[in-house]
Amino acid sequence: MESAIPEHLQCPRTRQRRVPDDYTPPYPSTVARFKPAVERVVMAYFGIQYRAEPAPEAATQALQRIAGSFEGDKAPGHWDRARYVDEAGFTNVISIGYWDDPDRFDAWFADFGSKWAGARNAFERAGIGTFTEVLRPSVQRFETLFSSDLPEGVAVLADGLSDVVQEHAYWGGARDRIPLSQTSEMAPAGQPSVVTEGRYQRVVPHDNLCLIRSGQDWAATERDERRMYLEDVEPVLRAGMNFLRDEGLPIGCFANRYMTVVDHEGRDTEKSFGMGWWKSLSALERWAESHTTHLAIFGAAMKYLATLGPAAKLRLYHEVTVAAAGEQLFEYFNCHSQTGMLRAG
Amino acid sequence: MESAIPEHLQCPRTRQRRVPDDYTPPYPSTVARFKPAVERVVMAYFGIQYRAEPAPEAATQALQRIAGSFEGDKAPGHWDRARYVDEAGFTNVISIGYWDDPDRFDAWFADFGSKWAGARNAFERAGIGTFTEVLRPSVQRFETLFSSDLPEGVAVLADGLSDVVQEHAYWGGARDRIPLSQTSEMAPAGQPSVVTEGRYQRVVPHDNLCLIRSGQDWAATERDERRMYLEDVEPVLRAGMNFLRDEGLPIGCFANRYMTVVDHEGRDTEKSFGMGWWKSLSALERWAESHTTHLAIFGAAMKYLATLGPAAKLRLYHEVTVAAAGEQLFEYFNCHSQTGMLRAG
Repeated sequence: MESAIPEHLQCPRTRQRRVPDDYTPPYPSTVARFKPAVERVVMAYFGIQYRAEPAPEAATQALQRIAGSFEGDKAPGHWDRARYVDEAGFTNVISIGYWDDPDRFDAWFADFGSKWAGARNAFERAGIGTFTEVLRPSVQRFETLFSSDLPEGVAVLADGLSDVVQEHAYWGGARDRIPLSQTSEMAPAGQPSVVTEGRYQRVVPHDNLCLIRSGQDWAATERDERRMYLEDVEPVLRAGMNFLRDEGLPIGCFANRYMTVVDHEGRDTEKSFGMGWWKSLSALERWAESHTTHLAIFGAAMKYLATLGPAAKLRLYHEVTVAAAGEQLFEYFNCHSQTGMLRAG
Repeated sequence: MESAIPEHLQCPRTRQRRVPDDYTPPYPSTVARFKPAVERVVMAYFGIQYRAEPAPEAATQALQRIAGSFEGDKAPGHWDRARYVDEAGFTNVISIGYWDDPDRFDAWFADFGSKWAGARNAFERAGIGTFTEVLRPSVQRFETLFSSDLPEGVAVLADGLSDVVQEHAYWGGARDRIPLSQTSEMAPAGQPSVVTEGRYQRVVPHDNLCLIRSGQDWAATERDERRMYLEDVEPVLRAGMNFLRDEGLPIGCFANRYMTVVDHEGRDTEKSFGMGWWKSLSALERWAESHTTHLAIFGAAMKYLATLGPAAKLRLYHEVTVAAAGEQLFEYFNCHSQTGMLRAG
């Protein structure tokens, strides 16, 4: 067992972990380990938004173009794509790129990314909405967690997975896994605001915004386990995700998307994730640990894992980031007013 | 809103609370406020144990005698009594006295208490078991919490109840309400051990033992609320209490009693409480926040409170103490080996 905080990011503490030094988690989990040379990563969400089905030709083209841009020497180290229909009835498809070299991202962004949802962009006359949501946190400012040895999201860029870590399976574990928590409360400062210039909108960020991507992969489940996931767990998860989407704002959740991962041809996979933009890690913690919708998710998941034990084939993971204002970029072009961080304005 | 830690016990922190300064709990709770002159309280549990029903004459006499000793100038400021049938089939009746003046307790104890379950005691030939479990924590070492304005337990000695407090309704709230948590992890040190001298047994204590008394009073509930408590909440609570009684030891619960409060004539009231002896506050926290049995209790209680809102007539309270070794006394005479802290040996 080792600390979730890698040795080279450990520092003299002014703040304590929530668990004693002899704490042993009741089941094993691992975290992504990046090479010490990696100082910062980029998590970039590029969305398209449209109402009609089937997808308009412009949407298909946009998806092809960004997939094309994700090849070559400035390309992200990993990317994936997910889809969901939002509360306003729009289909949103988001292509998510991960870089572990901000310079390479900047070069890619100058070439292609800035034209995705910028004030002047490639889709101005295409009749679809586009949006860009980027965090570029220092390695002090995010954490990951995995129930299996199959990395997802930013962890695909990592050098590998850790041994079993100590800081998990208790409320506050995510905070304790973020290196910055050794010395900072990571309290939010300020409020995000939206600047509108015609069909172009951008968000002026606040300090210590929190993003969670929390996913599940049931592709490997069979028979009873699959039925248990789909019938006992998934509906409870969906209810919680919908609560955050529809009623999250007063508790600090700016936006929540419960997305199905699609393959590069656009077909649904047996993976999904929730991604949520939060005012602060603290607000996310409060929902997770006290709201009936999340306790129901947690209870269903615990019952599931208790029933199946180590034989469980369901794969779970998440990544949680607390981003400084200077580590955020939000641009929306021709999107409806309830899109992503526009709800924060 | 105010801090659960009274002003005169606040000190420069070396450890942080779990919630940010602008945290607002989702519903109101209060804590007991003692006069600043109170530096230490005594919580003293005096049990009798017998197998036969109806109660043997010796049991009835013992209960009468201790009730008699609870009168006069050295008497506890408050006492109550509760009963349960333990896992070995024995009836246990515990008379619980609370003092806010340790000297007065010591004088009472020299007169009467030491004869309750000491090596030579008043019930040696009576054929019943007796036991004495006493904590005398400094005011830095315990906390209380109330959902109503009706004090119970040690809080009856208090000057009154606080305004609504900030540190509650999140995991870790109990720790944050204990003044010592400002500067100490309150980690357990050592292991309790049992010394047996014939029918007399005592426990050599360890540092930072934790006691929780967590109660409910449904006397004021009516109709739907009463049905909801008795049918939806109480069975879930009972299951959790039985889990701790029967399977608590590996997770750090030395003993757990789910007791019915009885009046001074021995009749059941509509109040109950669980009392648990734990290796540490940390062990109690882990069970409360992650074990399915407690999450079920928590979920049922939250659903209940969400349904009823401020109209709820159910009264809830608890007191949690973390006691230094020198603040503990455990004596057992002629008790079976699974009684209270004897299970720790």
